[in-house]
This record gives sequence, C-alpha cells and structure tokens, in this order.
Amino acid sequence: MVNENIRYERGVAKLTEIYGEKGQQLLDSLQDIAPDMARYVAEFAFGDIHCRPGLDLKSREIATVAALTAMGTAGPQLRSHIRAALVVGCTKQEIVEVIMQMTLYAGFPAALNGIQAAREVFSEVPQEK
Amino acid sequence: MVNENIRYERGVAKLTEIYGEKGQQLLDSLQDIAPDMARYVAEFAFGDIHCRPGLDLKSREIATVAALTAMGTAGPQLRSHIRAALVVGCTKQEIVEVIMQMTLYAGFPAALNGIQAAREVFSEVPQEK
Amino acid sequence: MVNENIRYERGVAKLTEIYGEKGQQLLDSLQDIAPDMARYVAEFAFGDIHCRPGLDLKSREIATVAALTAMGTAGPQLRSHIRAALVVGCTKQEIVEVIMQMTLYAGFPAALNGIQAAREVFSEVPQEK
Amino acid sequence: MVNENIRYERGVAKLTEIYGEKGQQLLDSLQDIAPDMARYVAEFAFGDIHCRPGLDLKSREIATVAALTAMGTAGPQLRSHIRAALVVGCTKQEIVEVIMQMTLYAGFPAALNGIQAAREVFSEVPQEK
Amino acid sequence: MVNENIRYERGVAKLTEIYGEKGQQLLDSLQDIAPDMARYVAEFAFGDIHCRPGLDLKSREIATVAALTAMGTAGPQLRSHIRAALVVGCTKQEIVEVIMQMTLYAGFPAALNGIQAAREVFSEVPQEK
Amino acid sequence: MVNENIRYERGVAKLTEIYGEKGQQLLDSLQDIAPDMARYVAEFAFGDIHCRPGLDLKSREIATVAALTAMGTAGPQLRSHIRAALVVGCTKQEIVEVIMQMTLYAGFPAALNGIQAAREVFSEVPQEK
Repeated sequence: MVNENIRYERGVAKLTEIYGEKGQQLLDSLQDIAPDMARYVAEFAFGDIHCRPGLDLKSREIATVAALTAMGTAGPQLRSHIRAALVVGCTKQEIVEVIMQMTLYAGFPAALNGIQAAREVFSEVPQEK
Repeated sequence: MVNENIRYERGVAKLTEIYGEKGQQLLDSLQDIAPDMARYVAEFAFGDIHCRPGLDLKSREIATVAALTAMGTAGPQLRSHIRAALVVGCTKQEIVEVIMQMTLYAGFPAALNGIQAAREVFSEVPQEK
Repeated sequence: MVNENIRYERGVAKLTEIYGEKGQQLLDSLQDIAPDMARYVAEFAFGDIHCRPGLDLKSREIATVAALTAMGTAGPQLRSHIRAALVVGCTKQEIVEVIMQMTLYAGFPAALNGIQAAREVFSEVPQEK
Repeated sequence: MVNENIRYERGVAKLTEIYGEKGQQLLDSLQDIAPDMARYVAEFAFGDIHCRPGLDLKSREIATVAALTAMGTAGPQLRSHIRAALVVGCTKQEIVEVIMQMTLYAGFPAALNGIQAAREVFSEVPQEK
Repeated sequence: MVNENIRYERGVAKLTEIYGEKGQQLLDSLQDIAPDMARYVAEFAFGDIHCRPGLDLKSREIATVAALTAMGTAGPQLRSHIRAALVVGCTKQEIVEVIMQMTLYAGFPAALNGIQAAREVFSEVPQEK
Repeated sequence: MVNENIRYERGVAKLTEIYGEKGQQLLDSLQDIAPDMARYVAEFAFGDIHCRPGLDLKSREIATVAALTAMGTAGPQLRSHIRAALVVGCTKQEIVEVIMQMTLYAGFPAALNGIQAAREVFSEVPQEK
C-alpha cells in the first residue's frame, strides 16, 4: 500500500532527476488553472509509470521520443523529452537515429519535424560535441 | 557508392534476421500488386534504415513498438514488431513496459490495444518464461 | 423542404449566437480564397448540425472541446470552441474537467496542450471568476 | 492524503457502476500479462479522474464518446463507452447526435464508423425504444 | 438558391454514378439509426462537394484515396473509394501509385495497409487486366 | 541495377524541378544534424518515388496536398507541397478544391487550416490570376 504523499514525492524526485528545474516549472505552471493536473503528472506519470522497474530510463525516453515524433501533435512535449533523453544518457546521435527511424513508420514530414525539434534542443544543450 | 543489389541483399538479410521466414513472406505477398513496394521495404526500410549504425537493433524495436502502439493505426505491423522485438532481445516484460508507457503519451485505449496485440504475439512465441 | 437561404440564415444566426462577431469574421476571412467554404460552414456546420434538436448546445460544445483536445491537430478551432463553450453556459471548471478527462483517452500531452489553450482563452474572457 | 487502497476501491466501484460486470472483466483480462495496467485503470482512470467533481458523469461520457469517435483508433473502447453512456443516462438519440456532430470535426468516415459502433451496442442493449 | 430536394437528388445521382448500388445501400443502412446522416451524405458530401466544378472526379478520388490511406482510420471507406476511383477512370496502377506515394507522407504501415485494401477491392472488380 | 549516385542525382534533379531552390535548401538544412536524412529525401522520396512512372506529377501533388491537409500534423510540408502543386501545373482553384474536399474526410478544422496554408503560399506566388 503506497500512500499519495509517497507517490507525489517520488514523482517530483523523478521529474527533477529527468527534467531538472523545468520539471518543477511544469508543475507550477498548472497551479492557476488545473492544479490537480500537476498532481497527476507527478503522481501517475512520474511517480507510477516512470518509476517502474522492468525498463531502464534510457529506453523509456527512446520510446517516448519515438512516439511523440510519430504522433506529430505534441511539439512542446517532444522537445521536453528530447532534452530528457540527453539527461538520462542518450547521445545526440542516438536521438537522431530514433527520429530518423520514424520515417519508416510515420513518414518523412514527422521525421523532418522531429529533427527540427532536436536541432532546437541540441542548440540549447551544449553538452557533448 | 552502394549499388542497388547490395542494398536489396543486405535488406533481405536484415529482414530475415529480424523476422525469420515472415520477412520473406511479406516481400512475396507484394509481388502480385506492388512488387516495387517489396523492393522499397527491403532496400530502404531494412537495407538503409535498419542497417544504420548509431542505434542498436533492440532500441530500434523499442522505438518502433512505442510508435505503432501510440499511433493505433497499424495493427498488423505492431504485431510484427512485437515479434521482432522478442527476436532482437527484448524480454516480454520490457515490451509490456514500453506499451504501458504509451498510456502517458497516447492514452489508455492505445496502451490497452497494444497489450492485446502483445498477448496475441506472446501466445504464439513460447520462448522465455 | 428547406431552401438554401433558410439554412444559410439560420446558420449565421447560430454562429453569431455562439461566437459573436468572431463568427462573422470567420466567414469573411474565407471570401478571398474559398467563399463556398464559408457558405458550407454556415449552411452545414451551423445551419444543419448545430441547429439539430436532440442534444443541447452545451453538450455539443463539451463533445467538440473533447474531440479537438484529443485530436491535437486543430489549435485555432480548439480555442474557438473553448470560447463557444463558455458562451453556451459551460463553466471554466467544466471545460477544464473535459480537457483533463482527455488525459485518459489521448494522453498527457493532448490534455496539457488543451489546458494551455484554455488558459489563453480564459485570460481574454473575464466573465466568471 | 488518500491511500492506494481507497483509490483502487473507489475506482472499482465507479467502474462497476458504469460498466457493470464488464468492468471487472476488463481488470481480470489484464492479470495474465499486465496486472499493474489493471491497477492503473482502476486507480487513475476511474478512482482519480472519473470520480472527480466538477463535471457530471453524463457529460464525461459525452466527451469520451466524442473523442473516441473522432480519433477512430479505439474501436473496442468506443463500444464500451457508448454502453457506459447509456448506463449513466444518455439516450440513444443523444449518443447518435454526439457521433453525428463529429462529422464536422473529424469527417464523415469517423462519424459513420461511430454510428456503426452505436448500432452494434444498441442492438445488445434493449432498454429504451 | 438551391432547394434541398435538388441537393438531395443530385447527391443521390452522383453517389449512384460513383458507387452504383452500393451508394444506395449506404443510405439505406443508416435509416434505422441515423436517417439524417444519410441525408447529409447525399446532400452535403455528394450533392454539394462532389458536384463542385473546378476539379475533375478522378482527381477527387485520387485525393480521397490518398487521404484515407494516410489517415489509416477508415478501412471501409478506403475500400469504397478505391472502388470509386476505378469507376471514375483511375487505372489499378494509378491507384497503387497513389497508395505507394503515401509511404513518404504517412509511413510504410499506412501504405502497406492501403495496398492490402486495394488487393481486396481489385479481386472483386475484374475490369481491366 | 541502379547505383546510388544515379538515384541521388535524379532525386536532386526532381526536387529542383518541383521546388526550385527551396529543394536544395531543405537538403542543406539537414547537413548539420542528419546529413543522411537529406540523402534519403533525395534518393528515396524524390529519386525513387517521385520519379516513378504510372502517375503524373500533378496527380502526385494532389494526393500529397490531400493527405497532408487531412493529417493536420505537417504544416511546413503542406505549405511546400501546395507550392509544388502550383509548379507542376495545378491551378489555385484546383488546390483549393482538393483542400475543401478534405472537409468530408477529415473535418472542417483540417480543411480550414489547409485553406489558411494555401492563402499564405498563394500570397507569395503571384503567378496566375
């Protein structure tokens, strides 16, 4: 039995591990209009799912970057997860490969728009050549 | 400079490595109506993209299972790639985790339908506990 | 038998009821390039469908905000329908609840982008606390 | 502070209220391969979101039927929610109106496929003329 | 000014021109549950849009087959429009080319599923080699 | 047997025929981050698919404008292909008709957003009345 406080706290910790201060900013930005949405992001998305064993964080971010590139409807979230993928240990090359692979499953426009998102994120994140 | 024969041959080899005889069956099934489509699957999808260095095959299949689960429009291909994911070394648990993670990015129906696809594939593929 | 003039006129009336002057602006904006599209918006979308009995306007806007949030491909129209939902009597809280519910069916990014759209519309529409 | 047991229990109660025995069947069907997915359905989808105040259950089902019709990727879930909509008090006519309204936002094929889903569900559910 | 009867009648005529008796069957199939939907299909989809000058019917069906292949959510309608494309003068080769082109814009699964739809339709329609 | 140089060169020639200098700009823009993606655009998208016999270029662009309008996830590419459609001989009216037809298959928002894209492209491209 896990109480809510524990889920919330481990979710915020995971969110901070992956997103740094941008994680807390996301939660704060929801307080005006949908504070429970912030709670669900922390508790369910990060406290439940992202904390699960059985798949390493790097693979979770590869899966997420792939899905958001293919869907093509979530530009801000794709950028956040490209940033997160770098934090959890993906190289820039690996991220570009994941996006290029989406050419096969979602077409060239999805992949080209994903590459543009990666270019923007990489330009802000100087680590690695 | 890579000539077409080389691309086709290495594509068929990669397709066979990942899909076994089902790969050749896919190519054969297109001969009646769209034989060049079979050629593009072999040359571009497998000879070009899946043979790229920079991302291991296991991560490529994680990305693909994630994307096809999230898109929800490619049932037969999702089943093929769940099968492929097992072949290139994903455990059943890892595949289920990838699909469950899609709950966050594409919603519960996408993930539940992905789990149903995994159940069908796992029941045909007895390897692993 | 309903003639076209009647469909057009009742459509413009309904459009004006729901959107105020923004409705007429939409129709005007199409005159340069696709004037018949303006006519179809008035006649079919508003004169036929939105005037139907059998479902109240508030429920129609709840359905529309839900669908556009889930689809994630129609940012301007989502904003218009959040505005319309307020006009036909939804509270801001109800609109936020509809959008949050989409977390379940279309994932967190769709809902978060819907909340951002609601925030923008609510900031222009001071009625209600 | 709400502990997990409470979320799970109220989620199962809500699920049973809406889906009858089909709700428990859904949870049971996931035990073989993804038991935690069943837990998330109960805890998050039903224990958290569907139990929220601020929007009545009927409006929640209208929103859901609209979204699933528009998305067109979740046939089994669309059928479940048409059934649920009847249980929480929508008339068949209201459900058909919600689906027909999707013609405007997602096109005729989405609406026609939604109508087919409704026909199948209505034929199993004799209540109401 | 065009009255409704005229729109309905020319819509049914166009529908019959393109779909033969399957057109009337579609309208009939909606009478039990959503008779007005049948009316909108006839009046708006066929009486208004398909009767427009400015684009020939063959190009309209090419556009439709392309879109439905790319969307991947409208299997029955894709099959109907492949059939319609043959009726209005597309060759089987042209239809296959349209579908194959979607590989670029919507990915291999969308195109492969479109080819499967074409195979099914072509097998029922013996005209042409 | 076609070697890679030939595919690349005929792809660049086709890309230049359709897009003018914007084609080369697209390839150049990918050199910093995904140079092989530029190569695949040239070789596969243009050297293989767009050079295929069996469907004229005008029909290929009609199919592409239709699909990208319906998908609603590829704004920059939709604008490029509206531009390309003009280059290969579509009139502005034909392009608007293709987009309006998508109202039927993907809904009013998709078509209205497509019309906005066409407006922007047409304003830059003064040819034709």
